[in-house]
Amino acid sequence: MARAIEIYDTTLRDGTQAENFNLSVEDKVRITLALDQLGIDYIEGGWPGANPMSVDYFNKIRRHKLTVARLTAFGSTRHIKNNPEQDANLQALLQAETPVITIFGKSWDIHVTDALNISLEENLEIIEDTLAFLKPSVDELIYDAEHFFDGFKNNPDYALATLASAVRGGAGTLVLCDTNGGTLPHELPAIIKTVKNTLDRDDAAVKLGIHSHNDSETAVANALVAVHCGITHVQGTMNGFGERCGNANLTSILPALIFKMGHDCTAAARIDELYRTSRLINELANLPHNRYQPYVGESAFAHKGGIHVSAVKRNPLTYEHIEPEKVGNNRRILISDQAGRANILHKAEQWGLRLKPDDPLLSAIILDLKEKENQGYKYEAAEASFELLMREALGLQRKFFRVEGFRVMNNKYRIDRPPLTEATIRLYVGGHEVHTASMGDGPVNALDRALRKALTRFYPCLEEMGLSDYKVRVLSGEHGTEAKVRVLVESTDNVCQWRTVGVSINIIEASWQALIDSVNYKLLKAEGLLG
Amino acid sequence: MARAIEIYDTTLRDGTQAENFNLSVEDKVRITLALDQLGIDYIEGGWPGANPMSVDYFNKIRRHKLTVARLTAFGSTRHIKNNPEQDANLQALLQAETPVITIFGKSWDIHVTDALNISLEENLEIIEDTLAFLKPSVDELIYDAEHFFDGFKNNPDYALATLASAVRGGAGTLVLCDTNGGTLPHELPAIIKTVKNTLDRDDAAVKLGIHSHNDSETAVANALVAVHCGITHVQGTMNGFGERCGNANLTSILPALIFKMGHDCTAAARIDELYRTSRLINELANLPHNRYQPYVGESAFAHKGGIHVSAVKRNPLTYEHIEPEKVGNNRRILISDQAGRANILHKAEQWGLRLKPDDPLLSAIILDLKEKENQGYKYEAAEASFELLMREALGLQRKFFRVEGFRVMNNKYRIDRPPLTEATIRLYVGGHEVHTASMGDGPVNALDRALRKALTRFYPCLEEMGLSDYKVRVLSGEHGTEAKVRVLVESTDNVCQWRTVGVSINIIEASWQALIDSVNYKLLKAEGLLG
Repeated sequence: MARAIEIYDTTLRDGTQAENFNLSVEDKVRITLALDQLGIDYIEGGWPGANPMSVDYFNKIRRHKLTVARLTAFGSTRHIKNNPEQDANLQALLQAETPVITIFGKSWDIHVTDALNISLEENLEIIEDTLAFLKPSVDELIYDAEHFFDGFKNNPDYALATLASAVRGGAGTLVLCDTNGGTLPHELPAIIKTVKNTLDRDDAAVKLGIHSHNDSETAVANALVAVHCGITHVQGTMNGFGERCGNANLTSILPALIFKMGHDCTAAARIDELYRTSRLINELANLPHNRYQPYVGESAFAHKGGIHVSAVKRNPLTYEHIEPEKVGNNRRILISDQAGRANILHKAEQWGLRLKPDDPLLSAIILDLKEKENQGYKYEAAEASFELLMREALGLQRKFFRVEGFRVMNNKYRIDRPPLTEATIRLYVGGHEVHTASMGDGPVNALDRALRKALTRFYPCLEEMGLSDYKVRVLSGEHGTEAKVRVLVESTDNVCQWRTVGVSINIIEASWQALIDSVNYKLLKAEGLLG
Repeated sequence: MARAIEIYDTTLRDGTQAENFNLSVEDKVRITLALDQLGIDYIEGGWPGANPMSVDYFNKIRRHKLTVARLTAFGSTRHIKNNPEQDANLQALLQAETPVITIFGKSWDIHVTDALNISLEENLEIIEDTLAFLKPSVDELIYDAEHFFDGFKNNPDYALATLASAVRGGAGTLVLCDTNGGTLPHELPAIIKTVKNTLDRDDAAVKLGIHSHNDSETAVANALVAVHCGITHVQGTMNGFGERCGNANLTSILPALIFKMGHDCTAAARIDELYRTSRLINELANLPHNRYQPYVGESAFAHKGGIHVSAVKRNPLTYEHIEPEKVGNNRRILISDQAGRANILHKAEQWGLRLKPDDPLLSAIILDLKEKENQGYKYEAAEASFELLMREALGLQRKFFRVEGFRVMNNKYRIDRPPLTEATIRLYVGGHEVHTASMGDGPVNALDRALRKALTRFYPCLEEMGLSDYKVRVLSGEHGTEAKVRVLVESTDNVCQWRTVGVSINIIEASWQALIDSVNYKLLKAEGLLG
């Protein structure tokens, strides 16, 4: 049995309700493309009627062609006082020009009378006519029945009546939402059965979906139990981001559906991209990865101890619920560097560097890497720095310039004015000394400008490049501003992007390291020295 | 129906298998006392046969009297080559002198033949005679059937035979373990039913338990589904710590059993200690709290948005699955860009500030807040800065000092040395001019030191405070180092913590704003001026 299950991602809308999870419009565009690549069926881009940033997003994403995913815009049923034609929220939805629209409406009688302040009958009307109004403008209409399970427990007939209204309005999919996240898995089968029987009785040819929240720590389980009960559409977010305790985590739902329950998902073909996609989203949001995260966490396939380890290697499935490579993760044997060697050889090949498994330089690179990682460097998101490190070890790194020193000065000369920032730098290119200075918007900007000012005379190609992102993370272990910081810099020359890293107790020094790597990488690239 | 459910905590044993979760013997003693106070029925203290630290723990904990909890020592079935009397592992268990002993044995045939390298029949023997040997020395014997679900799926008859051996050996409780964490909730009912029928047929008067792992993100669900199927003993860890992705999280299981499923648990009487106990364990392990953690996380009962907030206050249960106070947590009304009047009035009340709904100052505060938020300030995670902003608007902010200016200098005088950083500051306290300077590990650290050096002469209480966290986020909209940055600073005086925010294109300026707010907040606090 390979029943097909549709996956609906709401990371960009419900996900961003999570505290501390913030995405720029550019981040959202990048995530959309990554989710499309992963094979997600629906991507909910935002609520254009409530959030102006969503409007900007829908305008930008329109320029990209998605291969698999259908984009959907999210909004509420019309306001009771507006005709659908006059409802600003519905107009904003149409202006998003998505092939799919998702409308949420109230299922819980108390919410209708206490939050919307309208009659139960009026709520049924606005559900139906909102959907009916939108129907001709889209390929597909999805109806999210907010608070469905709580509503059903309080007043089953009314909750079912709201679904009937949505069917009459033209919804193709009805999504049962556990909005407060309080429903436990054993409660689902009976409720879903009643919903299905009611829909069958009414001959309603609709798909049924589930949207669960994690307030009881059962969001993933609720989604999977719902699928087991015959539901074919699952909503969730990547890494489980969402309001309060989060939404159902797609990074756990997808592998369960594909590998354990044998369902047919579009994402099955690229599920080995799961790990990478999960991490990309954290990186863009500047959040640490959860090492304990199922399937994609750093600890998810980590094994301790000797006997255990040889047993794992003999027959992994006796100690691992799935093979880590299936989702793009790796087994970690906590005492061995085997994974390290394979990884480095793989990279060397990718970058066209000659490096054989028995080359003594390989051990030197591993040592260097371990030393750097102990200091807090991380190369997952800074491959350009890692490539430079390898070239250095292999004696392939050309010295384009030699810096003698620099100085950065921040002068808050008047308390009501922004500080003035000046950087000076002294360096040599070949035999030429350059000693120059630049102002900047802040210390890193001033340093970046001074460095490039000093070098562009000799390397005009540096004019093409600029910083496109700058991230700072304080590393734990020590306290406050005395702790080490890791700086990630993303640079671009409008042809490609590269990322570099620096670590220091001093943020200026860490930024400096990342800037120098970035410039060196660009110079290598310009000279055609990169593989 | 108030069927009683026993709770068995293995934070100190299976929990410490988690990467990065380390506890000293003293920590373990403190956690034991806290778990006893919470009303946990069984506390598994360690594996004395495998871990010398456990021996030390059992010697120390013996000096304490527990009021509710029974202590248990954990160990494996005897080695095939030893008689029970000669088995060092079993001797270590007896020497722990606990009223309860928990023995784990193999249920999965492949593990018996491939990992233990013994015959299936021999495994049945060592299960039975290990338990029979220990039986006279303890009040209670618990048998953990390792890999039970995987074993059952592979060879149900053999898995059931291992349980029969444990019953014959004298086990009072049989615990079905999902050791690899790969079992999904919908698989449990049929398996548990078969186990129960088999035990009933054999007239075995034993309790049944569940021990689940979180590799499928369904550990809590699996435990609750098992209870729904009639199981009466639940094993888990606090905060879900455990090998790989963790064990079933008791901080989510307890409130579900008590408040949602109506079961009788010893912990019900003190369940409002759940929040405090959960945090104590993180603090002892020096790990950050997971803000998204169900029931006990900082975000678990956090609400955004205006209309939503007034509805929550009218009838909390329409937006919250349980009342946060029941588990010792609190509702949080977030100050966000959707902040309405209701939020601000709520905060004013909380902080003891006089502010009526019709006060014209309220509109001024809302305008001020919106202006700041447009500039990139965010007060969700910086309530101290928001309180200062409100006090300023209400004319309640005392001017403790006046800064004339500051200067921060980073001097990378040699390229192979870390830069030297110096900050100078000039300020007035009353009529006194202070002009001083400090070195630092980086620009923010130098500035922080110079500021506090200048002020502690007048305000000695500043000696007590320090920065405990420092976060930087680049705001979108512009590019690279020219973009605005938002700095969040967390400070502590070892009594409480507060968070402040600063925004600027210059990271030094942004950090400066957050530092100044932090110092002002501490001074207000020290003068007893905070509500």
